[in-house]
Amino acid sequence: MGLVVQKYGGSSVADAEGIKRVAKRIVEAKKNGHQVVVVVSAMGDTTDELIDLAEQVSPMPAGREFDMLLTAGERISMALLAMAIKNLGHEAQSFTGSQAGVITDSVHNKARIIDVTPGRIRDSVDEGNIAIVAGFQGVSQDKKDITTLGRGGSDTTAVALAAALDAEVCEIYTDVDGVFTADPRVVKKAKKIDWISFEDMLELAASGSKVLLHRCVEYARRYNIPIHVRSSFSGLQGTWVSSEPLAQNTQQQGVKVEQAIISGVAHDTSEAKVTVVGVPDKPGEAAAIFRTISNAEINIDMIVQNVSAASTGLTDISFTLPKAEGRKAIDALEKNKEGIGFDSLRYDDQIGKISLVGAGMKTNPGVTADFFTALSDAGVNIELISTSEIRISVVTRADDVNEAVRAVHSAFGLDSDSDEAVVYGGTGR
Amino acid sequence: MGLVVQKYGGSSVADAEGIKRVAKRIVEAKKNGHQVVVVVSAMGDTTDELIDLAEQVSPMPAGREFDMLLTAGERISMALLAMAIKNLGHEAQSFTGSQAGVITDSVHNKARIIDVTPGRIRDSVDEGNIAIVAGFQGVSQDKKDITTLGRGGSDTTAVALAAALDAEVCEIYTDVDGVFTADPRVVKKAKKIDWISFEDMLELAASGSKVLLHRCVEYARRYNIPIHVRSSFSGLQGTWVSSEPLAQNTQQQGVKVEQAIISGVAHDTSEAKVTVVGVPDKPGEAAAIFRTISNAEINIDMIVQNVSAASTGLTDISFTLPKAEGRKAIDALEKNKEGIGFDSLRYDDQIGKISLVGAGMKTNPGVTADFFTALSDAGVNIELISTSEIRISVVTRADDVNEAVRAVHSAFGLDSDSDEAVVYGGTGR
Repeated sequence: MGLVVQKYGGSSVADAEGIKRVAKRIVEAKKNGHQVVVVVSAMGDTTDELIDLAEQVSPMPAGREFDMLLTAGERISMALLAMAIKNLGHEAQSFTGSQAGVITDSVHNKARIIDVTPGRIRDSVDEGNIAIVAGFQGVSQDKKDITTLGRGGSDTTAVALAAALDAEVCEIYTDVDGVFTADPRVVKKAKKIDWISFEDMLELAASGSKVLLHRCVEYARRYNIPIHVRSSFSGLQGTWVSSEPLAQNTQQQGVKVEQAIISGVAHDTSEAKVTVVGVPDKPGEAAAIFRTISNAEINIDMIVQNVSAASTGLTDISFTLPKAEGRKAIDALEKNKEGIGFDSLRYDDQIGKISLVGAGMKTNPGVTADFFTALSDAGVNIELISTSEIRISVVTRADDVNEAVRAVHSAFGLDSDSDEAVVYGGTGR
Repeated sequence: MGLVVQKYGGSSVADAEGIKRVAKRIVEAKKNGHQVVVVVSAMGDTTDELIDLAEQVSPMPAGREFDMLLTAGERISMALLAMAIKNLGHEAQSFTGSQAGVITDSVHNKARIIDVTPGRIRDSVDEGNIAIVAGFQGVSQDKKDITTLGRGGSDTTAVALAAALDAEVCEIYTDVDGVFTADPRVVKKAKKIDWISFEDMLELAASGSKVLLHRCVEYARRYNIPIHVRSSFSGLQGTWVSSEPLAQNTQQQGVKVEQAIISGVAHDTSEAKVTVVGVPDKPGEAAAIFRTISNAEINIDMIVQNVSAASTGLTDISFTLPKAEGRKAIDALEKNKEGIGFDSLRYDDQIGKISLVGAGMKTNPGVTADFFTALSDAGVNIELISTSEIRISVVTRADDVNEAVRAVHSAFGLDSDSDEAVVYGGTGR
């Protein structure tokens, strides 16, 4: 029995009852012979309440002091959780990100972990304690200031600690049963995925699946730490994310992971589309546009350039980006209109993206054909297309997204009442 | 213009409005040319709310995790205060007790400061920042665990930082105008004291005055740091506590500090009285009793041994202690009844203590006589008496306390409509 890292999100520790329930589950893992390190987020709405307070004293709270403020949230939840565990007769000690050795860069509000030196955590568990660590926070290497890791930061803390402590597994406890073949709120017949590869999980996360964030999966893949996403409200097995299906997993549950090449369908309605109209079709134009966007520190997603109309020598370039960045992108491009040289800009925030994710997709042309057929049969018009080795994504009208997701989910045999998943090529993966 | 340390209590920063008001006052001091270090307590009821949460998860929260929890309170208030100052166009940085170099012993929930190494604070103010420091907290020297300083700890943090930074003054901002000659809620004619010596302030604090705690005054005396207790709600001068009256203070305000020998009247109804009845009047008996009490880690206040009755060879020993410790003291004594050898115990929690504090009291027998006369005229019966160089205290019925305080306050010419304070001996102090 080795060391496990468990991470509990804010909804799992929203109140005293939740904290006591989580404490029991942690003690169970300890009783089973594991060394246990727990990463915990702030209780329920604490972070929102702190942000609200900050906005009352300052119109644009940010930076160093904002991080100092927000980290109070985990300090509260972790201390309470340690107390609840001690009350069950087991020893527990809580540690801030700084005490746990989570070293970051100095970019406040969205710092990146650059090193983890968990000496105190190792000592604590070796002494027989359950170690509770504040998620989402660290300390900057140069200035020793408190930093936060940004959205989903607690998952990253958990995976980073699991890597530094050479843990058997990083368990991410949440309020759903695992990762599903599609969003269960949209597709009633969505199935829980028993195992998924890091690569497919990365594509799902990048395509709108909210269960695990891209950054956390990327970290787990780099250090080859198996993630087990599961519910803190039940004892059920959740979804394993790892490089290879675990033997215990396939045997115990009889999962036929090798036959399924399609992992799932993700969707995302948080993006908008910008079209730069009337761009001269000559070298350097796309570079000028995306240098402008990059200088404004805007992350973009899909990029599509239309075929140039021979008669005019002009083309259109479209890209998608988070709606929240839309205004900034338009302003940056307008400001640089002379330099880039285009006719006009179109902005459309009524779009949605549907993505099909699965290994070996590119070597199985049938997948792409079936995907487009499913969309066409459902009467969904496609505006942009983008593909990768293991993913195909399309942009549609936002209103069509739910219908499109259901159609694709069903066409690929992912519905829970399907006899078997559709398998292409028989690559035996 | 040197460095000033300002301390703001929880009631001064109870909400966003309070924080903004305090921020303005801090910026004013900075504009006047001072380097400013601010020590801040948790907002209003935050600490009580955290304690309430702790009690929901554990019946007896204590120790390391309880300290970790409580320190979240100052983290919130100090970050918000720094934001509010930045919003006024001045630079501010907040620091935890640990970051500010407040090093303590390892006694959780009531740690003692053993060193202050304020390198980061010094650097921060030298760079032009206003430094905001979390009160009430530190880090233990041996284990590097987060500790809290116990009740009134933020005042101690402020004085300790002022000493380590060689500050001009430590300003303690509170919700009253300063230290009064008696509790204004009991004595309507109580007057604000313009200056008081460390020694008299120590006796007032030990006798029930709540404005400054004994520990903080003791620290200030040891390092000779002038304290200025004042209201955060007004611009008025408050009470200076220092070794000698400050020239600026006496000149500017024409305070006749040298004539007043009586500083004030303090009272305390938080204590109970234990009487050990029928103790053999022989050497070692008192030692046995108080060794028992000391082993139970109970702090006691007054001790009085009655004259032995010659006929029985037995005597009674009474002492006072905080009501909260009463149960523990009785249990400890009962358990050791055989060893000590006494007849019975009496416990009385309906007592009050009135103390008159002033320099040169012992060399002016008239003071004691006038004190007892005032009590007698008011019909107040005296149960115990204890004296020091600069204080005389009596224990009475709790119901008599307010009347006794008013009578003594008036008899010593402290009422605000008195022409002049009563002066004894003319020692010219």
